[in-house]
Amino acid sequence: MIQVAVMGHGVVGSGVTEILLKNSAEIAKRVQDEIYIKKVLDLREFPDSPIADRFTKDFSEIEDDEDIKIVVEVMGGVEPAYTFVKSCLLKGKSVVTSNKELVAQKGAELLKIAKERNLNFLFEASVGGGIPIIRPLNQCLAANNVEEIDGILNGTTNFILTKMIKDSMSFEDALKLAQDLGYAERNPAADVEGHDACRKICILASMIFGKHVYPKGVHTEGITKVTLDDVGYAEAWGGVIKLIGSVKQNNGKHQILVAPMFVPAISQLSSVDDVFNAILVKGDSTGEVVFYGKGAGKLPTASAVVADVMDCVTNIDRRRNIFWEDSSNETIMPFEDTAYSMYVRVFAVNKAEACVNVSNLFGECNAIEKDNTPENEFAFVTPVMKYSDFEKACKSLEKEGCKILSTIRIADF
Amino acid sequence: MIQVAVMGHGVVGSGVTEILLKNSAEIAKRVQDEIYIKKVLDLREFPDSPIADRFTKDFSEIEDDEDIKIVVEVMGGVEPAYTFVKSCLLKGKSVVTSNKELVAQKGAELLKIAKERNLNFLFEASVGGGIPIIRPLNQCLAANNVEEIDGILNGTTNFILTKMIKDSMSFEDALKLAQDLGYAERNPAADVEGHDACRKICILASMIFGKHVYPKGVHTEGITKVTLDDVGYAEAWGGVIKLIGSVKQNNGKHQILVAPMFVPAISQLSSVDDVFNAILVKGDSTGEVVFYGKGAGKLPTASAVVADVMDCVTNIDRRRNIFWEDSSNETIMPFEDTAYSMYVRVFAVNKAEACVNVSNLFGECNAIEKDNTPENEFAFVTPVMKYSDFEKACKSLEKEGCKILSTIRIADF
Repeated sequence: MIQVAVMGHGVVGSGVTEILLKNSAEIAKRVQDEIYIKKVLDLREFPDSPIADRFTKDFSEIEDDEDIKIVVEVMGGVEPAYTFVKSCLLKGKSVVTSNKELVAQKGAELLKIAKERNLNFLFEASVGGGIPIIRPLNQCLAANNVEEIDGILNGTTNFILTKMIKDSMSFEDALKLAQDLGYAERNPAADVEGHDACRKICILASMIFGKHVYPKGVHTEGITKVTLDDVGYAEAWGGVIKLIGSVKQNNGKHQILVAPMFVPAISQLSSVDDVFNAILVKGDSTGEVVFYGKGAGKLPTASAVVADVMDCVTNIDRRRNIFWEDSSNETIMPFEDTAYSMYVRVFAVNKAEACVNVSNLFGECNAIEKDNTPENEFAFVTPVMKYSDFEKACKSLEKEGCKILSTIRIADF
Repeated sequence: MIQVAVMGHGVVGSGVTEILLKNSAEIAKRVQDEIYIKKVLDLREFPDSPIADRFTKDFSEIEDDEDIKIVVEVMGGVEPAYTFVKSCLLKGKSVVTSNKELVAQKGAELLKIAKERNLNFLFEASVGGGIPIIRPLNQCLAANNVEEIDGILNGTTNFILTKMIKDSMSFEDALKLAQDLGYAERNPAADVEGHDACRKICILASMIFGKHVYPKGVHTEGITKVTLDDVGYAEAWGGVIKLIGSVKQNNGKHQILVAPMFVPAISQLSSVDDVFNAILVKGDSTGEVVFYGKGAGKLPTASAVVADVMDCVTNIDRRRNIFWEDSSNETIMPFEDTAYSMYVRVFAVNKAEACVNVSNLFGECNAIEKDNTPENEFAFVTPVMKYSDFEKACKSLEKEGCKILSTIRIADF
């Protein structure tokens, strides 16, 4: 019998205990051992739980219990999760977490402690919820040089964008609906500002580079500025707007950012709607591989956590080969040096004159025409240009009397 | 240093040696051991290979070499692959194969031998080429009851169907093009008759049921009867025709078949084009997860083989938890009992009369209207009905003077 503790009894945590209890016989058959939940840590009361007697509010009951070999952390947030997880590892317990913030902020340090003590620190559920991605990516990496990852990594923003695209809802109305449906928090900043997606692309980037990529150094734009006009121009251009986390190797540097992008209809990512996530991995041998599924939710995420727990049980005395070193983001390409083709929407009193200025400043651009364009508005797509050059050109255009209403990157995958 | 042998130096085999040689330093770093190709078995001569001196035509040089711990089988076909692989396992060597025919025909027996001897028998590349599917599925299975798998499992037929759909090419012309491009063999039967897809869905079914499903008992239809008219009706209906391998649990029975199906545009599988494969896995906890990528090709397939070899190296003394028992297909639902909604295309001299007969025989059907329909032709979609009832109704309709031109299942995923 293997004894485990679950820290946190929220949405994911209650799913973990539910699966471990409900499927205990099948799980025991698969791992050839019984998994017993010894303790559940939560500050709240759950008198109706079938294992109500095993709840505790005192972390030391887990930390100091030498019989507990595996600890599940599903509390979320950096603290106190970080302190608790570190303590558990230092006490010789393997840890499974779904906490992307923890892994994105403290992954290198926790992986190092786990490695030194021959323990497992697993986090399949931290990216893509129930979509297997961390382990397959590790497998892709085995015989491949992974050159690029582009992903729709946040279900909430994808739901909002889908409602804007399919139902012409405004951002505000779509956000409200997402909140009403429980997809978005009352304070939706982490989702709509792109921070959640940023944590996830940082975890994937850390894996493929073997060096920790910290969110702090990663350019992150959310979807709060995306308007229905932009959605319409994207459609006229031949695609949709998606919030993309992207990382790629570029001349020895690592290019990484999170931003809304025009994604062409031909891309596998363009048809990923609602709360679904999808992650496109490009390897030099495998070519393009896409993983698609629900990126969040109680049971999908909990099942990924339980699969990691089972992996810990069958590998109780050996460490999975998932590791990256610490770093100071020194290989990250400065954001100003990244280069994309850009969509630009402009207000101009004199459109003809403005178009001439656009050609002079941005080079040869392609106009996008859509129905119901306001009289003094037009939109175009620039050639691929360095962001610093693009910004300069934008400033110059505004000096010429135009007002830039929107700028959005064109996906290059 | 771990010594390996590669049996077969065709497309995949040459890719395996290429990756093992080219990426040897990185691979050694990852598995913390050097992988040395001691022997390559092939009856042909490869004097220009950088390891030409290690080629042999004599299997006993591999079988009897106790230093060779891992053998890669990439010859294809059941014999002599089966005899060789069995001998290797009996001699205590782990085996990695990309050979779907071997796994579909002999998997249970070979897995049993491997289990008894605590060896690995791995076959990630046998399904989906470079798409990680066997290992993620095993992981999905860990905490999930996998209820259904539906997949586009054969790139050649998907290429042909894509050409029919997008470029209105006839089946014959599209097949010719696939042959010219090297996607289809000169004898294309294994692909276009559905046998290749059948082997792959049998492997996936065996994994999720834990019992071997033999191709022999699986109803298999290819795409040779699909016409451009059918493609047009599918479009008018709101979807595309794809060759689908499908397996699901149904009242304690296992429903499995390979057949062309109308796939609605809303499905993730509808946009999988050209030689790409995609596999949709439905778990009771994860919900729908899709794996997408190139299902064949030298480097994608070879990289999956090499990843398995690396897994064997890091687990040289322990067996991966992939196993299923032998069976006699006794849990497979008789094909006649499977139930689908069906598309039917009919020639009738008197259409009005025929329509009345259709309602009487099939129940309430939906007509599909498309442009340029020949005068005496019409098409409809039946309610979900047992195949045996459907066949009876078809016969009765033909007795009434109609001629049934096509019947194709409507996908229910």
